[in-house]
Amino acid sequence: MTAEEDDLPTGAPSSGPIAEVLRANQAFYDAHEAADLEAMAAIWEHSDRVVCIHPGWQILRTWPTVRDSWSRIFTGPARNQFILTNLAVSVDGDTALVTLEENLIASGPAGSGTGVVAATNVFVRDNRPVGHGWRLVAHHGSPVMAR
Amino acid sequence: MTAEEDDLPTGAPSSGPIAEVLRANQAFYDAHEAADLEAMAAIWEHSDRVVCIHPGWQILRTWPTVRDSWSRIFTGPARNQFILTNLAVSVDGDTALVTLEENLIASGPAGSGTGVVAATNVFVRDNRPVGHGWRLVAHHGSPVMAR
Repeated sequence: MTAEEDDLPTGAPSSGPIAEVLRANQAFYDAHEAADLEAMAAIWEHSDRVVCIHPGWQILRTWPTVRDSWSRIFTGPARNQFILTNLAVSVDGDTALVTLEENLIASGPAGSGTGVVAATNVFVRDNRPVGHGWRLVAHHGSPVMAR
Repeated sequence: MTAEEDDLPTGAPSSGPIAEVLRANQAFYDAHEAADLEAMAAIWEHSDRVVCIHPGWQILRTWPTVRDSWSRIFTGPARNQFILTNLAVSVDGDTALVTLEENLIASGPAGSGTGVVAATNVFVRDNRPVGHGWRLVAHHGSPVMAR
């Protein structure tokens, strides 16, 4: 088992498109936790169709705008850690849909907080020889309210 | 111009996959406004992979669970009307990604309310001769907080 495979949920396949998408999805959260803008940029498609809806935010469109939002989040005081639960992935051709709950542990000068964010992540496979792989084209997170 | 085409945004194509997806997306909101469970059922794929995240809700998975949520919403007192703005659609093979803002006008016994919900809708094309068309596989709505 490689280090990469350690990141996969128990029972998940270790090869094939589902495994590839799960690794891309995990890399997204790793980049977020590390506040690593370069790693985050490697995960997203750099195109006009990308869309990002942070919890409670308006829709952000196009890669430069989405990139700027991550830059602002990563240079802010909050640091986020995630425990990912209730994850499902489906692949249809070159498009993958991942939904999950981000169980958030945030820390910063204002103190620590917890919360659950429901997230939808859409990946599209880049089939070019250079840059081959799954790229994030849409991320949508929304706070789960206590019922 | 047909009645169906009247529903399309100004400048949108009147045929081809983008037009088909825009019609399917409009049919989703028409069914919601009309509180028409049968029309809503015709829009969704009836499969285990469907996923619905209502604003502030947890993730709902599988068609029977998603159907039940719409049934409860439609039999409740609230009636919703939507003005759809900031809509973008991209089609990649048999998958379509629609994002938009639902400008909500809700009315019910508790009074009227307004608000903006950012929404992500993922459609997948069913290519079988019977049942041909775009089906909703994921709907995610989240309240946009005042900034």
